[in-house]
Amino acid sequence: MESSNTLIAVDIGIDTHQEPVVYMRSDCHICRSEGFTANSRVLVDDGNSQIIATINVVDEKVLKSGSAGLSKIAMQRLDIAAGAPISVSHAPVVTSLTAVRKKIFGHKLSDEEISEIVEDISAHQYSDIEIASFLSVCAGSRLDVDEIIALTQAMVACGKRLSWPDSPMVLDKHCIGGLPGNRTTPLVVAIVSAAGLTIPKTSSRAITSPAGTADTMESLTTVNLNLTEIRRVVAQTLGCLAWGGAVNLSPADDLLIRIERALDLDGEGQLIASVLSKKIAAGSTHTVIDIPVGPTAKVRTEKEAERLASLFTQVGAACGIQVRCLITDGSQPVGRGIGPVEEARDVLAVLQGSSDAPDDLRERALFLAAHLFSLAYQEPFEQGLQRATEILDSSKAWFQFQSILAAQGGQKTLPEARYQHIESANTGGVLTTIDNRQLARLAKLAGAPTSAAAGLRLHKRVGEAVECGEPLFTLYSETKGELDYALAYYAQASIFSIGVAS
Amino acid sequence: MESSNTLIAVDIGIDTHQEPVVYMRSDCHICRSEGFTANSRVLVDDGNSQIIATINVVDEKVLKSGSAGLSKIAMQRLDIAAGAPISVSHAPVVTSLTAVRKKIFGHKLSDEEISEIVEDISAHQYSDIEIASFLSVCAGSRLDVDEIIALTQAMVACGKRLSWPDSPMVLDKHCIGGLPGNRTTPLVVAIVSAAGLTIPKTSSRAITSPAGTADTMESLTTVNLNLTEIRRVVAQTLGCLAWGGAVNLSPADDLLIRIERALDLDGEGQLIASVLSKKIAAGSTHTVIDIPVGPTAKVRTEKEAERLASLFTQVGAACGIQVRCLITDGSQPVGRGIGPVEEARDVLAVLQGSSDAPDDLRERALFLAAHLFSLAYQEPFEQGLQRATEILDSSKAWFQFQSILAAQGGQKTLPEARYQHIESANTGGVLTTIDNRQLARLAKLAGAPTSAAAGLRLHKRVGEAVECGEPLFTLYSETKGELDYALAYYAQASIFSIGVAS
Repeated sequence: MESSNTLIAVDIGIDTHQEPVVYMRSDCHICRSEGFTANSRVLVDDGNSQIIATINVVDEKVLKSGSAGLSKIAMQRLDIAAGAPISVSHAPVVTSLTAVRKKIFGHKLSDEEISEIVEDISAHQYSDIEIASFLSVCAGSRLDVDEIIALTQAMVACGKRLSWPDSPMVLDKHCIGGLPGNRTTPLVVAIVSAAGLTIPKTSSRAITSPAGTADTMESLTTVNLNLTEIRRVVAQTLGCLAWGGAVNLSPADDLLIRIERALDLDGEGQLIASVLSKKIAAGSTHTVIDIPVGPTAKVRTEKEAERLASLFTQVGAACGIQVRCLITDGSQPVGRGIGPVEEARDVLAVLQGSSDAPDDLRERALFLAAHLFSLAYQEPFEQGLQRATEILDSSKAWFQFQSILAAQGGQKTLPEARYQHIESANTGGVLTTIDNRQLARLAKLAGAPTSAAAGLRLHKRVGEAVECGEPLFTLYSETKGELDYALAYYAQASIFSIGVAS
Repeated sequence: MESSNTLIAVDIGIDTHQEPVVYMRSDCHICRSEGFTANSRVLVDDGNSQIIATINVVDEKVLKSGSAGLSKIAMQRLDIAAGAPISVSHAPVVTSLTAVRKKIFGHKLSDEEISEIVEDISAHQYSDIEIASFLSVCAGSRLDVDEIIALTQAMVACGKRLSWPDSPMVLDKHCIGGLPGNRTTPLVVAIVSAAGLTIPKTSSRAITSPAGTADTMESLTTVNLNLTEIRRVVAQTLGCLAWGGAVNLSPADDLLIRIERALDLDGEGQLIASVLSKKIAAGSTHTVIDIPVGPTAKVRTEKEAERLASLFTQVGAACGIQVRCLITDGSQPVGRGIGPVEEARDVLAVLQGSSDAPDDLRERALFLAAHLFSLAYQEPFEQGLQRATEILDSSKAWFQFQSILAAQGGQKTLPEARYQHIESANTGGVLTTIDNRQLARLAKLAGAPTSAAAGLRLHKRVGEAVECGEPLFTLYSETKGELDYALAYYAQASIFSIGVAS
């Protein structure tokens, strides 16, 4: 660290999300002599570690002379305390950007080029606009199967990797998403691990949906487990239901997903690499992938689903993991509850065999568990289904689920939302469609998943008769503001279509 | 504006460049009830105007409860004073992003789709990563000629447009860039307007180079002219040499260029639309485009230059402007001076016919002016060259240039740099190559164009003999720090190749 380039680090108290920002005075001698301007990319060095950050130039009133402000993520990545000396200099050239430009110009990337790009991204060398550029030119169908394989392997290589020496088979499942309430994972984990198979499941929190499996599970128990804790829970129960974000299985993917979501881009190559890299890193040997298809699901046509299934299987095979894809009905939400707590209620009802347990959620969970059994035991699906049904109906799955909750820190009581509102149909007929995307948005505006108890409960499903004035759903919220905001959205949305009985 | 969503605006004193940021406390009721997190895109409304901004969440110490900080560009775009009430709500969906996704997936865009994208970009509806995504999927050769025409016309449509009812012909010139010191514009404008032709030139400031024409001209006179002033100067002299940024001819392009430069992307479609939209908006009828080709110029091969020339001509014709492209030698810098003031010295030397005037700059300016004459008068190039040479050699161009300076506010005295350093050759032989890109970087590190007098003066050109110890260049700087920094860069760069005389 050159002393002439040294400034004192100040925690400026600003959260800039994943992109580190360093705040420098316009009259700072380093700013002037290096020719830094707003948005320059710079190397910040505290003598122990280095990060690349973007400069925001600030007025003299904001910072003392001789100091530089760091955003929260910058403080965190450097792992320094306020008052420490830092140096700021021009960011080095990121050589893998040459490969990104090659892709922009339509050329196929080599394994090495993809590997360098992923390494640099996971080392936080890319700015957000550079990640956006890379993702955009890889979306569509612009990555061929070789490139998707290379991307998957590169993502695995730059993260942590779990191994399960005591288990010859390690199972996993994944759903492509887009169906509110499709909370099969806790059920599948309980059923499969009750059968004596290892299924150490790590899940994500919601990104654009009203609840991820980790959010739902967090309303029931502790999900923020480190690797040692996951190993202990799996040693005790063969299963776990942990939050994947805490174990850093695919750090590059976490950075890519953030920009993908902001761009509302779900390129197939990126999607496949993202899902499979996490499975491989988690040590899975056999995985089923649920691909719901429907007009308002993530995958909208059978043809698109088949193409995705074929790519998943090919990439899985190349990476040494058995993948079975299941194309399922994605025409309406699954279960009755939407939002962390409401989905947890449905999961418990199915496990406990309650009379109000949603049939569709039960059937989907049995279907997925049966396929995992079929894959693991190389038995026909029907045999797997019988096995899964027996485990669920005999309450073995429920006892197993309780053991997992106990091992993860005990079962929590589900909270009740402070505000609720019953919305009724303003016409009668048959419920013909439910728009998954708008329904998800409604639950999110009510506060899900940030407020665990926020969300909604459906009282009608597609195909059912609805009388005018009959309840359609109950909305749950923790604040009056959110409840009103969600209802205002509902008033101008068209989530439910009620038609003439046919 | 709903009162429950109202916060007090605070000028937070941070320059976030073109992307407006609103700083909100994590405990702010709006943040909580709307579910805003770091990086959310929001609509900020002051009752008179609206902007879309990105949220940065801040600690309680940074802002008082009930207030929201605005970055400089946010304050500026809303045009409000600190203390004014603002409301913050979810950003509306930007519908043209659907068309961007269509392009991501490889489909051709219609004129209407391109027009909507450009309108939304110029209305600041796109985030930086969204602009990066659009540019990346349009780069390479992914825009066909129809799309480039539509992009050009859309850019013209969303900016201001000048007209010159008194002039049947309005001339212009443009250089694709990448050659340090290639400051022909002031010379061409002086020669062409001295001949009685209208050439109301607006130029850009440097973006990645050590000087733009506007920077060089600013060392000689006032360039920050508004439309009324430009009209007055042109009415008086037929020419002008103004900064284009002040007149907002193509606001969308200004936003695109910023991200293009950050990504180091120069997609041909974008480049053509950028150049031609500004010419058309400026009211030009006849334009010559200088395309220098060289291993370290922007365009590296003859083939690439020809493709670009063909597209320029086709798009120009479709947009009703006559374009003539000239493919020129881009193997080394033009003139001796690099940086605003040093380039201005070369321009003056050529106009005044000084003995030390750089021949190559003179020849290039005459060549371009001759082609403009040939285009305007429909005369052979040789006749145009004779006309241009006569005007320059008779000092008519020099008197004309002085008239333009006088009309723009008078001629300034060129400043001398505070520090200078003569760098000598450490070996003898023949100067075989000069790396344009590294040379430009050297001048920028010395402080150009921010410090007008910073830059360098070459003492040798390619092909000339150099003795060991003979001066290669003089470096100029306003601060000792910048001088040292530039020299440190020079020590590790390889800008000049000195070989055996052949």
